[in-house]
Amino acid sequence: MRRKLKVPIPKVSFRRFSEKSKADQLIGQAPGTLIYTGKKTTDKVEMEIFSYNEEEIHHHRSEDLSEIMQGFDGNRINWINIAGLSKVELIDKVGQEFSLHNLLLEDILMVDQRPKSEDFGDHIFFTIKMFHDRTEFGIEFEHISFVLGKNFILSFQENEEDIFGLLRDRLVNSYGKIRQKKADYLFYRFIDTIVDNYFLVLDSLAEKLEELEDEVMDKPSNHTLQKLQRIRKETIYLRRSIYPLRESINSLSKSENPLMEMETERFLSDVYDHTIQIIESMETYRDLHSGIMDLYMNMASNKMNEIMKVLTIMSTIFIPITFIAGIYGMNFQHMPELGFTWAYPAVWVLMLCVVIGMLLFFKSKKWF
Amino acid sequence: MRRKLKVPIPKVSFRRFSEKSKADQLIGQAPGTLIYTGKKTTDKVEMEIFSYNEEEIHHHRSEDLSEIMQGFDGNRINWINIAGLSKVELIDKVGQEFSLHNLLLEDILMVDQRPKSEDFGDHIFFTIKMFHDRTEFGIEFEHISFVLGKNFILSFQENEEDIFGLLRDRLVNSYGKIRQKKADYLFYRFIDTIVDNYFLVLDSLAEKLEELEDEVMDKPSNHTLQKLQRIRKETIYLRRSIYPLRESINSLSKSENPLMEMETERFLSDVYDHTIQIIESMETYRDLHSGIMDLYMNMASNKMNEIMKVLTIMSTIFIPITFIAGIYGMNFQHMPELGFTWAYPAVWVLMLCVVIGMLLFFKSKKWF
Amino acid sequence: MRRKLKVPIPKVSFRRFSEKSKADQLIGQAPGTLIYTGKKTTDKVEMEIFSYNEEEIHHHRSEDLSEIMQGFDGNRINWINIAGLSKVELIDKVGQEFSLHNLLLEDILMVDQRPKSEDFGDHIFFTIKMFHDRTEFGIEFEHISFVLGKNFILSFQENEEDIFGLLRDRLVNSYGKIRQKKADYLFYRFIDTIVDNYFLVLDSLAEKLEELEDEVMDKPSNHTLQKLQRIRKETIYLRRSIYPLRESINSLSKSENPLMEMETERFLSDVYDHTIQIIESMETYRDLHSGIMDLYMNMASNKMNEIMKVLTIMSTIFIPITFIAGIYGMNFQHMPELGFTWAYPAVWVLMLCVVIGMLLFFKSKKWF
Amino acid sequence: MRRKLKVPIPKVSFRRFSEKSKADQLIGQAPGTLIYTGKKTTDKVEMEIFSYNEEEIHHHRSEDLSEIMQGFDGNRINWINIAGLSKVELIDKVGQEFSLHNLLLEDILMVDQRPKSEDFGDHIFFTIKMFHDRTEFGIEFEHISFVLGKNFILSFQENEEDIFGLLRDRLVNSYGKIRQKKADYLFYRFIDTIVDNYFLVLDSLAEKLEELEDEVMDKPSNHTLQKLQRIRKETIYLRRSIYPLRESINSLSKSENPLMEMETERFLSDVYDHTIQIIESMETYRDLHSGIMDLYMNMASNKMNEIMKVLTIMSTIFIPITFIAGIYGMNFQHMPELGFTWAYPAVWVLMLCVVIGMLLFFKSKKWF
Amino acid sequence: MRRKLKVPIPKVSFRRFSEKSKADQLIGQAPGTLIYTGKKTTDKVEMEIFSYNEEEIHHHRSEDLSEIMQGFDGNRINWINIAGLSKVELIDKVGQEFSLHNLLLEDILMVDQRPKSEDFGDHIFFTIKMFHDRTEFGIEFEHISFVLGKNFILSFQENEEDIFGLLRDRLVNSYGKIRQKKADYLFYRFIDTIVDNYFLVLDSLAEKLEELEDEVMDKPSNHTLQKLQRIRKETIYLRRSIYPLRESINSLSKSENPLMEMETERFLSDVYDHTIQIIESMETYRDLHSGIMDLYMNMASNKMNEIMKVLTIMSTIFIPITFIAGIYGMNFQHMPELGFTWAYPAVWVLMLCVVIGMLLFFKSKKWF
Repeated sequence: MRRKLKVPIPKVSFRRFSEKSKADQLIGQAPGTLIYTGKKTTDKVEMEIFSYNEEEIHHHRSEDLSEIMQGFDGNRINWINIAGLSKVELIDKVGQEFSLHNLLLEDILMVDQRPKSEDFGDHIFFTIKMFHDRTEFGIEFEHISFVLGKNFILSFQENEEDIFGLLRDRLVNSYGKIRQKKADYLFYRFIDTIVDNYFLVLDSLAEKLEELEDEVMDKPSNHTLQKLQRIRKETIYLRRSIYPLRESINSLSKSENPLMEMETERFLSDVYDHTIQIIESMETYRDLHSGIMDLYMNMASNKMNEIMKVLTIMSTIFIPITFIAGIYGMNFQHMPELGFTWAYPAVWVLMLCVVIGMLLFFKSKKWF
Repeated sequence: MRRKLKVPIPKVSFRRFSEKSKADQLIGQAPGTLIYTGKKTTDKVEMEIFSYNEEEIHHHRSEDLSEIMQGFDGNRINWINIAGLSKVELIDKVGQEFSLHNLLLEDILMVDQRPKSEDFGDHIFFTIKMFHDRTEFGIEFEHISFVLGKNFILSFQENEEDIFGLLRDRLVNSYGKIRQKKADYLFYRFIDTIVDNYFLVLDSLAEKLEELEDEVMDKPSNHTLQKLQRIRKETIYLRRSIYPLRESINSLSKSENPLMEMETERFLSDVYDHTIQIIESMETYRDLHSGIMDLYMNMASNKMNEIMKVLTIMSTIFIPITFIAGIYGMNFQHMPELGFTWAYPAVWVLMLCVVIGMLLFFKSKKWF
Repeated sequence: MRRKLKVPIPKVSFRRFSEKSKADQLIGQAPGTLIYTGKKTTDKVEMEIFSYNEEEIHHHRSEDLSEIMQGFDGNRINWINIAGLSKVELIDKVGQEFSLHNLLLEDILMVDQRPKSEDFGDHIFFTIKMFHDRTEFGIEFEHISFVLGKNFILSFQENEEDIFGLLRDRLVNSYGKIRQKKADYLFYRFIDTIVDNYFLVLDSLAEKLEELEDEVMDKPSNHTLQKLQRIRKETIYLRRSIYPLRESINSLSKSENPLMEMETERFLSDVYDHTIQIIESMETYRDLHSGIMDLYMNMASNKMNEIMKVLTIMSTIFIPITFIAGIYGMNFQHMPELGFTWAYPAVWVLMLCVVIGMLLFFKSKKWF
Repeated sequence: MRRKLKVPIPKVSFRRFSEKSKADQLIGQAPGTLIYTGKKTTDKVEMEIFSYNEEEIHHHRSEDLSEIMQGFDGNRINWINIAGLSKVELIDKVGQEFSLHNLLLEDILMVDQRPKSEDFGDHIFFTIKMFHDRTEFGIEFEHISFVLGKNFILSFQENEEDIFGLLRDRLVNSYGKIRQKKADYLFYRFIDTIVDNYFLVLDSLAEKLEELEDEVMDKPSNHTLQKLQRIRKETIYLRRSIYPLRESINSLSKSENPLMEMETERFLSDVYDHTIQIIESMETYRDLHSGIMDLYMNMASNKMNEIMKVLTIMSTIFIPITFIAGIYGMNFQHMPELGFTWAYPAVWVLMLCVVIGMLLFFKSKKWF
Repeated sequence: MRRKLKVPIPKVSFRRFSEKSKADQLIGQAPGTLIYTGKKTTDKVEMEIFSYNEEEIHHHRSEDLSEIMQGFDGNRINWINIAGLSKVELIDKVGQEFSLHNLLLEDILMVDQRPKSEDFGDHIFFTIKMFHDRTEFGIEFEHISFVLGKNFILSFQENEEDIFGLLRDRLVNSYGKIRQKKADYLFYRFIDTIVDNYFLVLDSLAEKLEELEDEVMDKPSNHTLQKLQRIRKETIYLRRSIYPLRESINSLSKSENPLMEMETERFLSDVYDHTIQIIESMETYRDLHSGIMDLYMNMASNKMNEIMKVLTIMSTIFIPITFIAGIYGMNFQHMPELGFTWAYPAVWVLMLCVVIGMLLFFKSKKWF
């Protein structure tokens, strides 16, 4: 199960990150104590290993780590994908198998960890957020981690959804250069795939903004407002997840670790370019959002003006002539006008004059 | 007694920090003159010492410094906790006992001192704020200071509340590695415990924001506004207390003082990561808060529009037909219509036409 | 065909960049996979080559690359202009002909690529946006790329519009020093021409802002608001296209590549100066825009006040006197006043007093 | 006489600084031309000299510089205090006596000079603003300058108010270490005294903000608004006076001039800490101010909503029933209802139904 | 003729800079093509030369460059002032005479060029804006350029207005040290004179802001709003002209060109200080302006509240009692009350009760 940015209107959770921080469990714990902070909705963990070189590829799938490790071949490149983080003891075992630092394992399990890369010498750790755009529920975040070693890549997903399907197909079918390259190239392809995916989320954001702008111009309502607030919150969370990426991908692309080949670094600096472009888009959408908010406010204010105008025109036209009618509804015995034959039509004429006068006044004020 | 961010609605104190600065007492004083600037609500000071190594641990509790110092053993690690800062002369004696600089003692007593770390060569000074979230009273701040020496740690709290209970239990029961490490590890654990505690406060903040967003969407009122203002002020004070931490923990984690072991510095850079994450959350909540304020304003404006619409519709429908009724309430002797048998129903028809006309007009304006 | 910032009122596309990103096609593709992300409205590609030195100039135009390459003379300077990016395989062939890196070709085809310059040693890549101000449709963006080699310049346009017409004339007629200089000078002239063109767009923007300010002061309406929103979006997109230019032109002007002569670098730092000036103008227009928005809001608020004043004055004057008329319209049998001869004129006097009293009240409030 | 931030409501001067800049007098003058730019309300200048060492202290007071200089003893530390800057020629003489640069003297007399420190080798110049909080008149600024030499300190005040009274007492009574230290220590104590004084001003600002917040929540009015504007302006001017201090005190505390002893530099870095804390408080108050402004605006908007609700409820209830009454006030001869015995109570029932219907409608809208 | 910030209310030009950029003329031109981009209102160009040393000064005035150059004496310091830039060919000749780079000449003629300084080795180029505060027309900008050589200074003004009158007098009368110094001192005095002039413009700006604040507090209107908008635009343009100055004067004052003597650099760093002070004032005025805008908005909102209160009080008092009068104006035959003797006064009492009730209600709401 994936954590959701709970954004079905009107209920939206602000505790997107903190809700699951389980901060109270962590307080006072020794550093590196492993606690999974995501939603433990299922205990199922799926693992698979791809062990390949240019000639051949072996694939095993199991829920047992020792079976997976039997497929590991030190002379080939081994990609182990672990989908599901709820079994903390399994992650612990993986850590022992590959001699990973406890703080690294903590970061894998801490689903609120901000994107970062860390160089441990004989392996490189990288963590990033995957976005899933569930239109009806808003954007869902998934915490993805990678460990790149000399001849292996570990990938950790929060759930079993197949986000690297295209890469798996290319691997299996040896399409492109992917089987001829070292582990760092696959590592780069993972990151590239996730970052390219961000463009999809941005497209969807742009589309929603566009619809909302139309709605604001056409018939703004409280509902529009709530949708705007929802977008705003999604944007805030997206920015928070994407911003640190700039720094972490940059440090990757300038890594001096021999695990990273020159060519991969060139590719990574291309990913870095995309990250900058995504961040600039985020800023653009932020600006556009605040533009729509301004528009909304001014449209509402204009609507108010229009309503008030109608009320004022109707009132100021009818109030004086109703008064005139009231005058001649009085029951005084001595009201000479009442007896005059021409009085009634004269009152009509008087009223007409008042009405025309008021209309001319409004005309002069440019009220219509 | 703890100082409070006085936030029971509607009275909120802006002088959270400055109220107690007792600035007028300080002016013209020599540097390092010791004045306690917190609320001197009680003179009680509790002290305890834990003197331990891997094998054994000794614990003394007293209100007399000399008794405490008898428990001090230079060959073991000594943690002295002093709860209560109101007895200035006691702090002075502690300073003499451990040869602490007067400016350091001043910073311990100055409860408004911003978080900082200072390296005095043979000891390191660190001060930080502890937050206590008293839901009904808002967030309370406590000024905590530490002095790390070769074989001792001094901790200064403003009051007797037991914030390091978990660590004390671990120490006493020798749970985990805590008894096998040097003083700098215990020092790190103190800081880590306090910073982890910040996540709790952030969670509570997020929860309040979420409730307020619901309230704004459902039934915004002046009361909502006052709660939003209260949150805003809490956020401002939290930011102010947390921001300087980034710098001070960073300088700790890069300290070259031999008191700090390499491993502890690695752990501290993990705390630094958490601090960054907390600061980013603060920024997020700040953005969310301003989003809710915008929402509030627009909801109020929409409500106004709706109210005005009702008034305008009712008025513009009834004002013309009331006028018609007024016309035939006039007492002119020569009003031929009054005598016609069909006049009365005809007037009803006329009024109906007016009403229908107005309704069509409002329909065309999309007012309902 | 050129992509448009779709800004005919009221429909405006937010997906100016992302709409064409075709992000879903790109995901999982190997790096450097060539996909044209612009609007493939036509398959027509026009190519021409100018091969010149100080003495002579040869000009060929063809749709076939091999014919163009026959006009290439390694001892002269060769400018090849390719108008139209829809034939990906052609771009691929050009890349092979001049040994260009695949990532470079990708950037040529990626019409959303932000402006950048990249030094590949034996050639320099530069990409920039051209703006076309179609007054009725808003501003259109065109993705332009250049590759500068030792004795050649490649220029890639999205469409066949002749944006370098003036330069071509100067080349053909050997006007100025253009034929006596190396390829880097022509390269500089291309960039200079495009950047100078930005001033035209800024002029047009300034003119529109000026008109809108007048409109806001004179007769602000929803339509004005929509035009302001349109300008806002254009400004956001322009800023996004121009900002990165600062960095890329600066790095060009400080390039240490021998392809760039000292004098050209001096000229480029002049272009850099212009870029700074353009960016400052953008900021100015942004400030001016938000000033006009404020003006709009306050004008609307003033208008509301004025409307309310009219309503209030009319109502508060006529409501009391209508009440008086109502009183004497009652049908009680025992109303002594009704019989008095002077009662009717007395009521008129009373009403007059009420009217005068109200008017004096409004006067005292400075309502007129 | 002191210059005032003219803030008695409602008249507030924006020309706090520039009013006295006497810019027109300065234009075209040679550099270092001495012109006093403060308010020359009196020609009185008071001078006094304290000449002291650890054993003894001599004190002279005179209006004649030569008399003062007779008290100067090169083997002791000499503090000369000059209160009043209106006699330009006197300042000139002081400058000649101590070989001060003309630009330095210009800065002493230029009361709008921003805080700065300047190292002239054999003497150090430092200028700072003193704030006097005249509650009824707002905050007053005083331009204070110091010159620190090997065995002397010159202090220049704008007026005769005794701001260093506490220090003078300590000097005269040899209280604390002040008489045992060199001139740089006294110099530090001057700066420390002034900076500590800032806390008082901040306290007063906090108190005013707190009162205004209460006022906004309780009964916001135009008067509240004007007080908020006054506070805003005071905050702007305070920030402007305090910000440059950070830089100037920092450069002092890192001075390599032998006039500054190591220990004094440590004390100055403590003052620097205070300056940072003051600047952070300023930022906090700025945020709080804008929070109160938001509160004000929303309170006003809520009040409007409440007023409109009352109007709308009253109008929409009475307008329809008044219409009904109007109907039966018509004078048609053929209105069968008028003759029915039960018609009158039936009309009352009808009206009651209308009233109840409207009330239910408002209830459904949650208007009360 | 001078270009104007066209700010007579209500017409204000946003194209202050760009209007004259004549961008379309420039596109495709070779670098350094000389085009005057200011308003060519007159062809008149006035030139004068001052050739002086400590002993003597010669002065020539002519419209012919060769005549002017006859007054040039390489052993003295020569100041040539050229007022009027419309004769491009003259500027070209001057450039040839003094071997100036074409890009430098372009910057002299480009009246929109932002302030900058450029070091050409044997001469230094400096360009700056002069402000003329024409109160009725707003602020006018003038583009001024200087070229400092070993024994000459060239100054270029856009028009013939005498802005260096004071300096000329000092030169001619050998007042002060001006004749004893080298060319760089005169150069510094030019810059100093212009920067001092900025204080005048700031004073005028402060005065206008002060008046507008009074107006907002007293009787805010659309006219006030337009004046605020005008000030806003002036401030935006001023900031844009002044900001780059910081950098350019700083680089001058740190120039290592032998043309600049140490002492002059000291003086220039004093000018730099003034520039900082001016920029800080600009920021202050910007903050003040936005404070006044807030004030305006809230005053308008308060006014609206007050108007609505009057309307609501009048309406809710009179609507119910008018209804009562309406009741007894009905013509039912069976209305027993109508026959009671005490009915009429009883109705009056009833109405009085309603009025008092409403008034008490408003009182409880604190509406007066």
